[in-house]
Amino acid sequence: MERKRRTLSLEQPRGAGDELRADVITSRDNKWLKMFRTALRGNGPERNQPIGVEGIKLVEDGLRSGLALEALLVSGAGERNLARILDIASETEAGVRRERILRTTDKLFAGIAGTETPQGVAALFRTPVWELDDVLRGPGASRGNAALVVVLAGAQDPGNVGTILRSAEAFGATGAVATRGTADPWSPKALRASAGSALRLPVLRGLAIPVLLAQLKIEQVRVIAAIAGGRRDGSERPAGPATWDFPRSLDDLRQAVAIFIGNEGAGLPVEVEHAADAAISIPMSGAVESLNAGVAASLLLYELARGRERSR
Amino acid sequence: MERKRRTLSLEQPRGAGDELRADVITSRDNKWLKMFRTALRGNGPERNQPIGVEGIKLVEDGLRSGLALEALLVSGAGERNLARILDIASETEAGVRRERILRTTDKLFAGIAGTETPQGVAALFRTPVWELDDVLRGPGASRGNAALVVVLAGAQDPGNVGTILRSAEAFGATGAVATRGTADPWSPKALRASAGSALRLPVLRGLAIPVLLAQLKIEQVRVIAAIAGGRRDGSERPAGPATWDFPRSLDDLRQAVAIFIGNEGAGLPVEVEHAADAAISIPMSGAVESLNAGVAASLLLYELARGRERSR
Repeated sequence: MERKRRTLSLEQPRGAGDELRADVITSRDNKWLKMFRTALRGNGPERNQPIGVEGIKLVEDGLRSGLALEALLVSGAGERNLARILDIASETEAGVRRERILRTTDKLFAGIAGTETPQGVAALFRTPVWELDDVLRGPGASRGNAALVVVLAGAQDPGNVGTILRSAEAFGATGAVATRGTADPWSPKALRASAGSALRLPVLRGLAIPVLLAQLKIEQVRVIAAIAGGRRDGSERPAGPATWDFPRSLDDLRQAVAIFIGNEGAGLPVEVEHAADAAISIPMSGAVESLNAGVAASLLLYELARGRERSR
Repeated sequence: MERKRRTLSLEQPRGAGDELRADVITSRDNKWLKMFRTALRGNGPERNQPIGVEGIKLVEDGLRSGLALEALLVSGAGERNLARILDIASETEAGVRRERILRTTDKLFAGIAGTETPQGVAALFRTPVWELDDVLRGPGASRGNAALVVVLAGAQDPGNVGTILRSAEAFGATGAVATRGTADPWSPKALRASAGSALRLPVLRGLAIPVLLAQLKIEQVRVIAAIAGGRRDGSERPAGPATWDFPRSLDDLRQAVAIFIGNEGAGLPVEVEHAADAAISIPMSGAVESLNAGVAASLLLYELARGRERSR
């Protein structure tokens, strides 16, 4: 069964929701529903595929951050939020094409959603094209500061990846890189955990670590390796780069820096520890061997932000 | 089909694993397997039910922290870790009763495990009985410090609850309270996220908030409400208790304190904000409205620990 859709004439009056009575998608074989399902249940967009975003807040975040909307899908339950979402969309540069506002039933929506209690609103956004330059210079507001880049090098949990991007934005990072093999920052779970930060912060995905290290060197960005195992008793790891004292070393670190965060269990790849200008770890007490990766990264970013603020 | 088991004589020689050839549980209806399944797949132990713990590291953590072992279950895949685990158990006060070392097949183990790739080792521990006094005085090492209690008041995500307990132990908290309606710190997911801290830190579960607030008042513990929405522009929330400057207010806070962390979306219950001696929030930049609950709690605990260390 084919999707039926009526393209609305632009002359229709713009009463709340009234002007948008497009026919409802009622077939689960509809190509749009299939695209939404893939995007909302996958592990992040393949090359040239759109970012799938679910829920009122995240859809609004995507629009506000200026991402180009490929399609908006609304079910009966989400209908009451449509007018507001379209208002936000109308203020963006790209706007929203009416024939890309799609409707379906709550039941079919539940069949494509990635959450257990879907809000009935989802969107497909074109993946933004960020360059290393964006990641080093930051979003509009940050331009002028030295680069503060968080590099996710092997984190497997999309929740941790999203949490780190959320903290990165909160503490004024200029951008983020997720190296090859890291959970995708634009996967549905990471997007949710980022609370929208993954849609705002310049993010590079899938870079090979040697390539990234070489580029950072050319750009004169210092590489800091976040390592576990800081002890209050002052004992240090035997090998690797110089271990910086935390947080004192970050107090007047105004140069461009990239903090590398490793895999939750295995830590950072050896090549990163070798290439790093410094290693840093957070002192802990008790029988704790390491902090949650999201917490550790957030603490480092927090102290870096504080140091920069103090030295202003 | 009944479980068959052979109690081993203590005179048998103690070769690695060799002395423990108990018969293998081969029926999924076995009462022990059912108990393990309930414990490893539930949302935390009911009253008088044991804590279920899975994986080599967590089982060892439970033994090392002195919890009483009710039963140890090992499958073929976990067998090679048994000798080591028994070594650790033998050093504990309670030890391990041989008839409570149970074996099953990898297939049946997968059917009771809560993880996707089980390691073939699980344990049931008797739930420890902590009093408020323990939570205020801390585990052995911390005794002597003023109370530093983290109160989880409504967090729904067991991952966040576990992460916070992990940070709490790392930053020297004396104990934790999970109020009624909060995800259980002893649920399998929280235990994993805590990396064992939930088994070491004194933890009270299921307290009603008014009762807790009253007890903290009697014990002269200051109540700090962690709230979202700190802005770098200095704007403050209109109502509630005095808002303390973060992190400066924590710099010389050597008194006994309890930090209340709320629900991920809804924040703290109104009664907490009303009763609190102070509210505190972490300043953020960008479009970020709040941090991940685990990150926010960890940052507060980190700054409290630092302040105490400095003022020593």
